[in-house]
Amino acid sequence: MTFTVNSYAAFSKDTDLVPHKLERRDLAKDDVLIDITYTGICHSDVHEAHNDWGTANYPIIPGHEIVGVVSAIGDSVTKVKVGDCVAVGCLVDSCLKCGPCLADEEIFCVKVSTKTYNSPEPHFPGHLTAGGYSEKIVVRDHFVLQVPKELQAPELLPGVAPLLCAGITMHTPLTEHHASKGQKVGIVGLGGLGSMGVKLAVAIGAEVVVISRNHKKDSKAKELGASGVLASTSKEELEKHAGTFDLIIDTVPFDHDVNVYIPLLKNHKTLVVVGHVGPFVASPISSTGLIFGDRRIAGSCIGGIKGTQEVLDFCAKHKIISDHIVINMEEVNDAWKVIGDTASRYVIDIAKYRESNKKA
Amino acid sequence: MTFTVNSYAAFSKDTDLVPHKLERRDLAKDDVLIDITYTGICHSDVHEAHNDWGTANYPIIPGHEIVGVVSAIGDSVTKVKVGDCVAVGCLVDSCLKCGPCLADEEIFCVKVSTKTYNSPEPHFPGHLTAGGYSEKIVVRDHFVLQVPKELQAPELLPGVAPLLCAGITMHTPLTEHHASKGQKVGIVGLGGLGSMGVKLAVAIGAEVVVISRNHKKDSKAKELGASGVLASTSKEELEKHAGTFDLIIDTVPFDHDVNVYIPLLKNHKTLVVVGHVGPFVASPISSTGLIFGDRRIAGSCIGGIKGTQEVLDFCAKHKIISDHIVINMEEVNDAWKVIGDTASRYVIDIAKYRESNKKA
Repeated sequence: MTFTVNSYAAFSKDTDLVPHKLERRDLAKDDVLIDITYTGICHSDVHEAHNDWGTANYPIIPGHEIVGVVSAIGDSVTKVKVGDCVAVGCLVDSCLKCGPCLADEEIFCVKVSTKTYNSPEPHFPGHLTAGGYSEKIVVRDHFVLQVPKELQAPELLPGVAPLLCAGITMHTPLTEHHASKGQKVGIVGLGGLGSMGVKLAVAIGAEVVVISRNHKKDSKAKELGASGVLASTSKEELEKHAGTFDLIIDTVPFDHDVNVYIPLLKNHKTLVVVGHVGPFVASPISSTGLIFGDRRIAGSCIGGIKGTQEVLDFCAKHKIISDHIVINMEEVNDAWKVIGDTASRYVIDIAKYRESNKKA
Repeated sequence: MTFTVNSYAAFSKDTDLVPHKLERRDLAKDDVLIDITYTGICHSDVHEAHNDWGTANYPIIPGHEIVGVVSAIGDSVTKVKVGDCVAVGCLVDSCLKCGPCLADEEIFCVKVSTKTYNSPEPHFPGHLTAGGYSEKIVVRDHFVLQVPKELQAPELLPGVAPLLCAGITMHTPLTEHHASKGQKVGIVGLGGLGSMGVKLAVAIGAEVVVISRNHKKDSKAKELGASGVLASTSKEELEKHAGTFDLIIDTVPFDHDVNVYIPLLKNHKTLVVVGHVGPFVASPISSTGLIFGDRRIAGSCIGGIKGTQEVLDFCAKHKIISDHIVINMEEVNDAWKVIGDTASRYVIDIAKYRESNKKA
């Protein structure tokens, strides 16, 4: 028996999100029903809804930074119990049998990794997955994360939601490329991803330098724990920092010149691109800086379920949440218009939305 | 007391190499005088002499794939003795004190790594270094390699010269990226570098696939020990091999589309560019294949002195030399015109040149 929940949906690339009665699948034996508490707004929500990547299937109910409370479980679920504070990130299904799945990289499942929204819904034929801009969500148990006790405090919880995307997206390259205490880590860009990257790298014990076009974000960078900002337009500053970085993570979400960052790396070290997806046309990537220093450019894609639980646990240990601004569901279209202007993540108060719908 | 040797030199980017009386420095206490036996012709000899990289200082006496016999040593030299069969590669000096030098990567010396030719000569002020297109060379002992006994046989020795550049250039990425038995290694391009790469990777125990635009080099690839050729213009073949390579080394020496190779890699694996130095303009590099698979693009630059001795020892153990065609010094201009048409390396018989000069 399916059921209906209130949600906000995009019906075309040009129109605002509008209220929408969303049909959710009934619980299978390995499913978890979650009453959503908060959902973070990720820039990719906007990209998907506006069909910027040509992958939109309408209606789109966005949201893949979800925290909530378990309100029911299927017969075989043992991972969580009713009342648990849980979370859901960017993935809600994969084959769990292929090489990448068995290596805890469900995101690279060779069959199909089902995104939290805008993907064909394997357990609800003819439907699309629908995300956290809704009152409730049904998720296969493997893809449900535990929110650690330390992060469940009411004042912290909204800032936990962005860990499910921004947090894991920065955690993966930091661990994959062995960021460690005493190293010098560069974070290019200080939006939602960059801010999380600074906090995580600082907690690891690295010296963190924000790489930005200018010094406008000096105070924000320092507030987050960075040692300072390197202005990538200053030849002098680039020279001063040349050959000193152990790792640089580039969060800039559009085409830009990455050649400028390569000489900043020590020999054999890596620039990881997590922001811009697509060709680097504006300034063609040159092999020169790679060859003379055996340097590397890598990509990194969000992360797997194990890694996502790890970043939640790491953040609990280090008392890290995302800077955030809580908004009401009715304000979501306004928030979408100014997203990117701030290092804080907008987070929708879904519990409040659900309560108001009950009263209505 | 300086001395004069016969050589062939380029005096401008447009003119042929011509006979030239070259002044060599007298031996310092840590210097080795080498009577050159063979010098390999590397494509970069042509690039430098033609000023393709804008770095030419004339006259240029090219040649950085040198084997010969020690004919004198300075007072403090213990590394080699008179009569030893030795070799010289792309580097003849560095500071030996900086981080990269102490890490056996003299090529990345932060002060200055002196190339075998066309570099300012630190031990002979006002002169440029001059390479192996000459009868004799004076080289600081640290930069002189031992040719293993197994490779000293007259029929093998000319094929040893190319190991000093092509060999080490392919050895470095194979070791740096941990190529090992049972892995699948791709070699893009089957010129001098590519051929060496196939031989070395096969000797390591890898399955080696040559990646070429078409199947014209099938038989050559198999002769070298590769399992076959992947035609990079065949969508079908690209799909068949997608996600199967542990390492790909790209030897193509001009701007080309590397995006086509990225999806061939397993997740977390690396494409190493060793051929083309400069921007990839023809087809801008895309982050998409890097991000969805956490794949990497790296550069690699020749190698250090320790690595060069290692590749000589490895080749001795596995009886590997470069395919080669021996020519007389007088044929060098003709060879330059057809370089690149063959997987065999042209090697100049310098011993014969020296003998003929004696008689003249």
